[in-house]
Amino acid sequence: MFRILSSELKNYLGKEVEIKGRIYNLRQLGQINFLILQDDNGLAQCLIEKERCQLPKEKIKPGDLVTIIGSVKKEPRAPQGIEIGCQKISFINQSIEELPFDLSKKELHLQLSTLFDNRALTLRNEKIRLIFRIEGIILETYARIMRGLGFQEIKTPKIIGAASEGGANFFSVNYFGRRAFLAQSPQLYKQICVGVFGKVFEIGPAFRAEKHFTTRHLNEYTSLDAEIGFINDWREIMTELNGIIRIIAQEINRRFEKELEKFNTSIIKAPENIPSIKLSQAKEILKKEYSHPINENEDLDPEGEKLIGQYALDKFDSDFIFLTHYPQQKRPFYTMPAENDETKSFDLIYRGLEIVSGGQRIHQYQQLIKNIKKLGLNPDSFSFYLEAFKYAMPPHGGWGLGLERMVAKTLNLSTVKEASLFPRDVKRLTP
Amino acid sequence: MFRILSSELKNYLGKEVEIKGRIYNLRQLGQINFLILQDDNGLAQCLIEKERCQLPKEKIKPGDLVTIIGSVKKEPRAPQGIEIGCQKISFINQSIEELPFDLSKKELHLQLSTLFDNRALTLRNEKIRLIFRIEGIILETYARIMRGLGFQEIKTPKIIGAASEGGANFFSVNYFGRRAFLAQSPQLYKQICVGVFGKVFEIGPAFRAEKHFTTRHLNEYTSLDAEIGFINDWREIMTELNGIIRIIAQEINRRFEKELEKFNTSIIKAPENIPSIKLSQAKEILKKEYSHPINENEDLDPEGEKLIGQYALDKFDSDFIFLTHYPQQKRPFYTMPAENDETKSFDLIYRGLEIVSGGQRIHQYQQLIKNIKKLGLNPDSFSFYLEAFKYAMPPHGGWGLGLERMVAKTLNLSTVKEASLFPRDVKRLTP
Repeated sequence: MFRILSSELKNYLGKEVEIKGRIYNLRQLGQINFLILQDDNGLAQCLIEKERCQLPKEKIKPGDLVTIIGSVKKEPRAPQGIEIGCQKISFINQSIEELPFDLSKKELHLQLSTLFDNRALTLRNEKIRLIFRIEGIILETYARIMRGLGFQEIKTPKIIGAASEGGANFFSVNYFGRRAFLAQSPQLYKQICVGVFGKVFEIGPAFRAEKHFTTRHLNEYTSLDAEIGFINDWREIMTELNGIIRIIAQEINRRFEKELEKFNTSIIKAPENIPSIKLSQAKEILKKEYSHPINENEDLDPEGEKLIGQYALDKFDSDFIFLTHYPQQKRPFYTMPAENDETKSFDLIYRGLEIVSGGQRIHQYQQLIKNIKKLGLNPDSFSFYLEAFKYAMPPHGGWGLGLERMVAKTLNLSTVKEASLFPRDVKRLTP
Repeated sequence: MFRILSSELKNYLGKEVEIKGRIYNLRQLGQINFLILQDDNGLAQCLIEKERCQLPKEKIKPGDLVTIIGSVKKEPRAPQGIEIGCQKISFINQSIEELPFDLSKKELHLQLSTLFDNRALTLRNEKIRLIFRIEGIILETYARIMRGLGFQEIKTPKIIGAASEGGANFFSVNYFGRRAFLAQSPQLYKQICVGVFGKVFEIGPAFRAEKHFTTRHLNEYTSLDAEIGFINDWREIMTELNGIIRIIAQEINRRFEKELEKFNTSIIKAPENIPSIKLSQAKEILKKEYSHPINENEDLDPEGEKLIGQYALDKFDSDFIFLTHYPQQKRPFYTMPAENDETKSFDLIYRGLEIVSGGQRIHQYQQLIKNIKKLGLNPDSFSFYLEAFKYAMPPHGGWGLGLERMVAKTLNLSTVKEASLFPRDVKRLTP
């Protein structure tokens, strides 16, 4: 007999099967026991009637790994309408201690520190596993769409020679006695690659040495990047992103409509035309309609993002809204300027949280040099990058999308850290 | 009119089109000029007859970016049998200097230092672009197969709290004043995740602070990892890998048979049953058949790997060979022991180079603790990892495959560095 998975049980009605997995829960009802088995991709209800089932000598307990041989029957009261009548249960491996908490609860209700300190266990909870199934689907769907659109996949270095975007918040690395840094984003490299392949995408880690201890920040996260060449207008970038977001949303809505309810949330509203307003307009709206003024040279604060998200939902029935035309002093040196000290740039707000930052980049060599100097940086530090521009770059732009932020907002998580298998924050380096 | 790509020209015979790209080459034959245009995914031959074509005022030159409007014609002498008769050429952007070398040569014949110092340009060479197209196909195919087999995709942290595999060769990171490290592999994390999801895969960067300055080493590379739970026998891991390697090889052979010739190599020979011999047998063969003895406690040296690769090809008509049963003192603490101080471990040699390391892992808590101590390490440093084992891990194992090594051997590259967009070695941190 070979192992089948809980998700395949429906194809084996009336048959004898072997399943393997972890004892997720045990419930005793008189002489009858119900065992809930957790395997790779789901749960299976198993009925243990003592006289009909050969059990191991030692007592089975939640957390143990077992092989179950039994027959598959219809049972309307079972979760999938299917139950296994156990004939034999044998150990694959046993927990050496009782589980410190019941992992089979719908909600673990643990403090965040406990949740993350015991990650090897807490990840085994079904609702928490679901977070990473959905994350996996976003990764899969993003890559599939990008390849379908002809984007070349790239892998750019994470150890870099200069804290090259000129900002702070870089982690430093001892590189054979030299000082190196961890890449905050693949920005400069993906731009070089647009001069090579026309359009590129990358899925990889990004590192931010930000001391913020908030529900929105991770010091290491997964960034879904793209850069597109030969654009005619910078709004094409937003149109492309809009289409991609819409397909990802459709995929999640289609596959996980029921599961979203478990997270007290519902399907993602990603319209064909995501509303788009200028940052300056957003500030006016916040001031007039929400009595939430933002200072002139400031970005939206978290409360402002939340309110603009609400505005998008109320006014446009959209979970997303683009904010555009960020002021030049708020954007990095490579950002394409627009009129009135604004830039051809955007953020995408999803359910009240910025999940994407993007825009058009400067593609003219002289203009780029001028802008680097204007921001007090030294063009010599960027010579490897400027070489691409010396030899003609196409008009281009792109974005970086924070995977964990997208997942956190999709599933209404209390913090973006819950969307990371092993989150890193200012205080947390383990597990 | 909207832009079409060079790869789509065959669908537009007799029609007028607009294409955009980089002037790859210009050839003058009397009054007639041939312009080779390079775009996202190929080249297009364009005919310029001066009286029929409206040219920009400034002279066009290789490296410039142009829009060409013209009509698509059959032309047997053109590379794809298709030519564009130019009606209008206009600049998108111009190089501000002449290119320092002719990028349109079949072989650039540059010194490696020049090749990598000028990466923003040298990547634009068609043969070099091809390296990364093939790399992209491997990434795509690997992920597709793994998902199809039900593996959960994971993203594990690259900044870790302890140099956890106990070895040397870790890069250290300043993490808010604390000492942290860059992950050499996702090993411990993917094992924890096998206890959660049953089987997992990861595609991500790996960092090795090895001072080797060879053609086989990169200090940052892309690792294709997998870990499989509920195995009955450790050879199942090799069987699974064998199947995956075979599909990747078929994909490359099918799509790139012609292109492989450009690299003076041919299709990949990945048999249904990749030959497998013990490391000790390999040593005997090297001694007896190749007069290349290896010391008793030594791994194969590069020459030994090369000869064993040759042996696999000559004897089994295979580009691959598994070497198994590495001695315990040569493998990390988590490796499952076998009899006679050997282990249930393997390397996969591809055309004479190790590209995969893998094996079964210890899954019993007590045995793991014992082995950690035996190797002089402190179990306390691994408490987050040991937690998974305290609460029952299934028998499991997996592998790590070096992407750049696989590409380098597939394309007969002079060094693995050529398979990295922006390689990192002991001396190189830029570009």
